[in-house]
Amino acid sequence: MAQQAKKIAVILSGCGVFDGSEIHESVITLLSLDMAEAEAVCYAPNIPHRHVINHGTKEESKGEIRNVLTEAARIARGKIQDLSKAKVAELDGAVFPGGFGAVKNLSSFSVDGARCSVDKSVVKFIEGMHKAGKPMAFLCIAPAICAKVLGAKGVSVTIGNDTATAKVIEELGAKHVECKVNEIHVDKVNKIVSTPSYMYADASVSKVAEGINKCIQTLIKLTV
Amino acid sequence: MAQQAKKIAVILSGCGVFDGSEIHESVITLLSLDMAEAEAVCYAPNIPHRHVINHGTKEESKGEIRNVLTEAARIARGKIQDLSKAKVAELDGAVFPGGFGAVKNLSSFSVDGARCSVDKSVVKFIEGMHKAGKPMAFLCIAPAICAKVLGAKGVSVTIGNDTATAKVIEELGAKHVECKVNEIHVDKVNKIVSTPSYMYADASVSKVAEGINKCIQTLIKLTV
Repeated sequence: MAQQAKKIAVILSGCGVFDGSEIHESVITLLSLDMAEAEAVCYAPNIPHRHVINHGTKEESKGEIRNVLTEAARIARGKIQDLSKAKVAELDGAVFPGGFGAVKNLSSFSVDGARCSVDKSVVKFIEGMHKAGKPMAFLCIAPAICAKVLGAKGVSVTIGNDTATAKVIEELGAKHVECKVNEIHVDKVNKIVSTPSYMYADASVSKVAEGINKCIQTLIKLTV
Repeated sequence: MAQQAKKIAVILSGCGVFDGSEIHESVITLLSLDMAEAEAVCYAPNIPHRHVINHGTKEESKGEIRNVLTEAARIARGKIQDLSKAKVAELDGAVFPGGFGAVKNLSSFSVDGARCSVDKSVVKFIEGMHKAGKPMAFLCIAPAICAKVLGAKGVSVTIGNDTATAKVIEELGAKHVECKVNEIHVDKVNKIVSTPSYMYADASVSKVAEGINKCIQTLIKLTV
């Protein structure tokens, strides 16, 4: 009998690097999961965006209101669910792509640093997955969320070589390990995999893909 | 001396399958170009969206106004230019990803069929590239634009196996050739490559990628 496909949650935070999920990282995650014959299940919290950034001018689009779940649905081609409905028991693992949405919508890390808050559905989900011994991958800046929620467990992560961000991550109790864009860091004890992706903002998309592919392959090996 | 990277325009039409560029197809195009050591240069027309579709409910978000170039900038991580500024002489080829934006924003094919209009910067660009003998790839529903602009040249394209759409494409003077999702059709005379992508709406992202990768590799071979 063929083994059943692993069911991996992909937690999105909007649609666009400056105010939501980094689109390349999200699509490469979905592609990599499909190539590994895993089933991707997309989720996002049903909350408003912190703000909307015009990705052409990089300025805030004042007064514009967008919803994280609705915008993330663009990346998921409409197949997405409210994260608060996710059931840990039905999943084998999870991936958090990066983009500012991870630190503006899923958490307030971009403005509050170590004192940030994390959306309650995100906290519940990460704590539930960790408690159940299920692996999670965090890309780009998303390891900051992991550090905030699981810092006390002594998790180790990478966000590349940005020393200022790495310092805040260590203030949260996590260990930071420097990595190149096409490398990954694996915390075997906590089953946490991470890769810097576009924390190297000028990285080529194929180098980013190399890191994400390694992340996904390792994540799947860590599923029981 | 190493050969100079081929410069390939990627013409976007917004950000999201139901009212803009299909995001997976666009990112896979960028990834595939980078893996082929080509340089992607993103463009979109600076025009309003026909309408905004809530990708969760699939209903129109009445009264909401978005700009095609501004939304496409999300896929391009901000590195995008107005299509009316594109210079054919500086480019080696072009790719048009699909998504409803191709037939709602770049053209009115989705509502007007064979009688559709095409944005004037798109017409000028396609005619200029064709006249200069530079290859173009059209993904998903984008071959409909090619049929409208170059139908009189007897181009041949594929949009998969959707007979109703294929019929309209033939009304425009183009020839339609049925293809599977991971296959491509090549019109060598006109240097037009096409692949169905998400015209097979339930296709897996890895099968879509297989077709796009073949398309990009062939496109690059067709550059002089």
